[in-house]
This record gives sequence, structure tokens and C-alpha cells, in this order.
Amino acid sequence: MSKKILILAGDGIGPEVMTEVKRIISWMNARGLTDFAVSEGLVGGSAYDVHGVPLADETMAEAMDADAVLLGAVGGPKWDSLDFSVKPERGLLRLRKEMELFANLRPALVFDALAEASSLKLDIVKGLDIMIVRELTGGVYFGQPRGITTLENGERQGLNTQVYTTSEIVRIAEVAFDLAYKRGKKVHSVEKANVMESGLLWREEVQKLRDAKYGDIALEHMYADNCAMQLVRNPKQFDVIVTDNLFGDLLSDCAAMLTGSLGMLPSASIGADIGGGKRRAMYEPVHGSAPDIAGQGKANPLACILSYSMMLRYSFGMLDVADMLDNAVQDVLNQGIRTGDIMQAGATLVGTSGMGDALLKAL
Amino acid sequence: MSKKILILAGDGIGPEVMTEVKRIISWMNARGLTDFAVSEGLVGGSAYDVHGVPLADETMAEAMDADAVLLGAVGGPKWDSLDFSVKPERGLLRLRKEMELFANLRPALVFDALAEASSLKLDIVKGLDIMIVRELTGGVYFGQPRGITTLENGERQGLNTQVYTTSEIVRIAEVAFDLAYKRGKKVHSVEKANVMESGLLWREEVQKLRDAKYGDIALEHMYADNCAMQLVRNPKQFDVIVTDNLFGDLLSDCAAMLTGSLGMLPSASIGADIGGGKRRAMYEPVHGSAPDIAGQGKANPLACILSYSMMLRYSFGMLDVADMLDNAVQDVLNQGIRTGDIMQAGATLVGTSGMGDALLKAL
Ligand SMILES: CC(C)[C@H](C(=O)O)[C@@H](O)C(=O)O
Ligand SMILES: CC(C)[C@H](C(=O)O)[C@@H](O)C(=O)O
Repeated sequence: MSKKILILAGDGIGPEVMTEVKRIISWMNARGLTDFAVSEGLVGGSAYDVHGVPLADETMAEAMDADAVLLGAVGGPKWDSLDFSVKPERGLLRLRKEMELFANLRPALVFDALAEASSLKLDIVKGLDIMIVRELTGGVYFGQPRGITTLENGERQGLNTQVYTTSEIVRIAEVAFDLAYKRGKKVHSVEKANVMESGLLWREEVQKLRDAKYGDIALEHMYADNCAMQLVRNPKQFDVIVTDNLFGDLLSDCAAMLTGSLGMLPSASIGADIGGGKRRAMYEPVHGSAPDIAGQGKANPLACILSYSMMLRYSFGMLDVADMLDNAVQDVLNQGIRTGDIMQAGATLVGTSGMGDALLKAL
Repeated sequence: MSKKILILAGDGIGPEVMTEVKRIISWMNARGLTDFAVSEGLVGGSAYDVHGVPLADETMAEAMDADAVLLGAVGGPKWDSLDFSVKPERGLLRLRKEMELFANLRPALVFDALAEASSLKLDIVKGLDIMIVRELTGGVYFGQPRGITTLENGERQGLNTQVYTTSEIVRIAEVAFDLAYKRGKKVHSVEKANVMESGLLWREEVQKLRDAKYGDIALEHMYADNCAMQLVRNPKQFDVIVTDNLFGDLLSDCAAMLTGSLGMLPSASIGADIGGGKRRAMYEPVHGSAPDIAGQGKANPLACILSYSMMLRYSFGMLDVADMLDNAVQDVLNQGIRTGDIMQAGATLVGTSGMGDALLKAL
């Protein structure tokens, strides 16, 4: 029976890069490598324009029902002044929350062919391979109470609540430790336990879990400010970093930028086992909707393509097909084929569909 | 009448680097350049060891009474397992809160002589000069309710509250705009208005203030995750960054590390006018207590010395004396005199007191 994939291309360059992924899915389906039934829906500003909300209930239901979701990007200046409750981002956050995608995996990987593109010195980033495991359904993103109120003295007050429970911390730490097992067996757990009690609980629970179940893993605790520094100073000291929703937002973007090629970075957001070994999951490139170049056929589709590769790997266990796709990406890079964002002297400049062509050829 | 300076050397390398500042203060007093009455107190772990609290009430009272406070650094592994309420950091946080030091100024400056030390490529950081204005007495650092509780289901829950009011936002934004006037007239205001209502209020209030009072200043709003990226990608796009307590903690450390010479960076924390043009203020190096090298006479005293220079400038308006000190630091760097943290091939390695000697000679 075919697996159901829901594609939510979103805003800005989302649809363009997604077009290239769809070509690859068709190619793989046609060759019997995969058997995916693809449907499509709207999210973000483009959903708002049609439905008046950044994610329609029917789309939400389809996402709940899908075997995996592939998302492009959301947001753009057109929708910047919308009310908080219908901003494009809220569509994305609703997906994360209702699908319970608590584990966000954000690899920060430097491709050898692109290491020069980093703003950091070559020796600092060459060979970099960090996995950031970000908690995605808790913390200040969703904590109650929240909102803007007017105080008795006439001032306004904006309030959000940072909150974590034992089980939320334990399940994300398990993901990090399990991943570390297959990698360098080293986990940095990041919080501000010196300032925030939620961070102190985080530190204590992660340590307890390590001692009880993951004796082989080297665990270090690090304050978030220090982590931001260490990522810049010497990123290769890290293997797996596990952290909360808000710190993960900043630190994963910082780590992504170290690579110098944001247009290359995929991510996976994974839920709990909902029975029968099935986990809900959503895959999306780390880059945003890039409104400045949207619609011009310039965007780099590789991050979205590599997100699809993560889907093959994590949702469907199709390691061979995923490897094949990853290798094709390497080949194309080695051939010197580049979109504008990763362009280098002497390389061949192509657009979004040109990159898709090259990739299909490499496959 | 002499001005009262309270020195709180703190833990780790704090006392060592402070020794060099005291030599400079004596030198300046002896020459009639300044007229400072210096007293000293304990803060952090060293205060805990004596008083059982990281800041004694008498020391707090002295700080309230001082014309300016100079702090070294707090914390270290020795006190890591202390209860949250008496951790070394709480001494520092108490000073900030009771002195109402709401404005933390953190320059990220690349000294020409040290630009090579950055992990970033030379052209990305050479000439970098960013001023980060961090809100220091609000937000999740101090918001109530907070704490760790046990829920009915037996799980533990850690909670903190991120909260800002109009007046808190306006007064820190004013500091940023006023500083921008004397610099590049450009302010980036940083929050997560797409996710947090406290950030949305921040954005709205900063924009209102700009439109009402600072028409000459170019204001841009930026999400904190994007700011973390942009600092790595192209830090020279920034002039003044204004942000909240927690984002400021991470982003200022990230920016500091871009310079490659943390041992060089001072900071100032400044309060409101408490009458007669007097503002409470505390100055401290950005680096921490560096327990790994404490007591070895290796630490770089320049960040603490430059913090004292900021004191001369911001608390006492002694611009000439401050310039004299800053120039002496430049001279010493140009002479190729270096502590271990900023050592370069061909330079002369000195220890903490050797750097102090060189500086006094340059003065
Ligand atoms: C778009 C925004 C809501 C989102 C976040 O803050 O999580 C984005 O920055 C991300 O990291 O996926
Ligand atoms: C020591 C710690 C409490 C402090 C903070 O988080 O503010 C430090 O990191 C700083 O930035 O001054």
C-alpha cells in the first residue's frame, strides 16, 4: 500500500524548491524505488490568503493522517502586519503542536566542497558535523499564561511562560542520547540552570537519565550563552547538542550559519510512537521563505531535497534510497554545479530547476 | 570630595585581574588625575564561603552607596552544586536588581592588532564595532511566578516567566537610540515577535518610541534566531543592537566571541537617574571567572582595565582620562605584548602582572 505524503509548500521560495522535490519523488515512484501517494495543501500566508487562517482544519486533519509531511517555508513581509493569532508562523506552530512533533533534528554539516563558503576560517569548520536536537512542542513557545494585557496604571504588559515537565525533558533527552549512540557518543545539554529553574530541572533530569540508562554517553552541561560562544570559537567540540525550544531556535540557526550554506540544511521534526511503530513526522529545510528572491527561480532546492532524504531515512527506514539521494547531492556539488547562494569562483551557476535537472541526471 | 568606588573582585581570576586595575587607580590618584576612594567587598562563591550567601547585606548597602562598582567575575566548579538560591550568580543578579541596573552595554570591538585571533575570516570581522544594549533587570531572569514544583501526577515542573512592561521597554530603547546617535544612527531591535507576545509588545513599543522621538535613527526589527545567524554571517551590518535580558545574554556572548578576544571586552551596567544626575552603575569584564587558569597569574587583565575605563567615561564623564587609558591599551597591543589568551606568533608573552607593568609604562 502506498505511503501518504503531504506536501505543504508554503510561502516565498517554498513552492519553487518543492517543485524540484516533486520531480524527484515522481522519478523514484516511476522506478519502483518508492510508492508514495502525494497530496498537497496550503500553509502560512498562502493559506491565510485563501482561508483566512494560516492552516485550515482540513489541512491539519490531512497532516495528522499522513505518513509524513514535507514543508517548504512560511512567512513574508506581505503578512507581517497580520494579527498575532493568524500570522503565517502560527500555521507551522499548530502543525508542530497537534502532531506532537517534540523532537526537532537539525544537522549542521559542512560539505567539503562548500567549506570555503563559511564566514569562519576553513580549519575551524572543515568536516563539521553537529546534530542539534531541539525540543519543539514545549517551553516558552506554548506555555500558558501568555499574552498582552493592560495594567491598572495604564501600561501594557507582555507575558510568556517558560515551562517544562520531567516527561517532556526525558523524552527529548532520550532522542539525543539515542542519536549520540550512532555518532560520537557525546551530548552537550544546554540551558541556563544558573538563572532559570526550568533550566535547573532540565539539567537534573538529563543527568539522571544519563546515569540510569546511558552510561556510555559522555554528557556535559553547558550554559546557553557559553554554547553560543563555543559554537563560534570551536564548533567541532560538539557532537550532539540537546536543548529547549527557544535556545534551540537560536543555537541551531547559529550553527547552521557556521556552515556558510544555509541553502543546504535540512531538518526533521518527529513525534512520539503513536502505536504500531508509527511516528508522525514533518521535514523542512532550515532556510526561510526568502521573499527577496521568491519567484525568480534562483533558490537552492537542495535543503528541501535533503529534507526529503531525511524523510526516507527516519520515517520510512529506506536507508539505501536516502543514501542514493545524498550521494547524488554530493556528486552535483563535486561537479561544481551551484545555485547563487553557494556560488564559488570557477563553478557553474544554475537556477532552481537547473539544480533539479543536475540532480536527476546524477541519480 | 573623593568619589567612592566599590571593588568586588569575586571568584576565579577576578582577584588577579583586579589587582592590576587597583595599580592603575593608585597611579591615577597619585597623579591627581582622579580622586577615588576605593573599598572592597566579597561577591559570588568567595562571599558564600565567608557569609553563607553570595552577597552580604552590608556589601549590598555599600554598593547602593558607591558612586560606581567594579566587579571581577563570579562562579566556579567549587560552588556548582550549591542550592539555586545561594549560587554565586545570585550575588551578581541581586546587585543588578537592587541597583536597578537596567541597561547593560556590551561593546563587541575588534582591535586591529588582534583581528587575526578571530575564528572568523579577517575581512568579516576587521574593524567590527557593535554595541549591544541588553535589558538587565527584567524578563525571564526575574519574572514571577518561578520555581520547581511537583505536579499531582508525580512529575516535576520547572517554570519561569518572561515578562516586560511598556516602561521597561521604553527606557532600554531610549538608551539604545541615544547611543546610536553618537554612533552609526542604526538600531536593530531583536525579539521573537512571531512567537512570543512579550516580543510583540517589545517590537511595537520600540517602533512607537522611534517614530515619536528618534526620527533620525534607522530602526530595523529582527528575530533573535536570525540575529544569531546574521552575527555569524555578516556582523558588520550592525551598529547598535537592543534586546531583552535572555536574548542579550546569548547574543552578546556570540558577538563577543566573534572578536576572538574575549579577554579584551568590558561591559557597563547602568541604572536610572536617581536624582542629581546620579546613576548607579557597575562595570565588569565580559569574560567569566575562568577557574581553569585561576591563581596562575596568566589571566588577561585588559577587559577589567577597559571596564574601569568605561567607568571613567560613563560614571564620571572623565573622557580624557578614559581616552588616555584606552590609548595605553592600544600602545601595549601595538608593542606586541600579549597574555596567553591573545598570543600570536612573534609577540611577547606576559602574565597578568606583566601586562599591568606594560600598561603602567605606556601610561
Ligand atoms: C518560523 C518560526 C516560528 C520558527 C521558530 O521560531 O521555531 C523558525 O524560526 C524555526 O526555527 O523553525
Ligand atoms: C553569570 C550569569 C548569571 C550572567 C547572566 O546570565 O546574565 C552572565 O552570563 C552574564 O552575561 O553576565
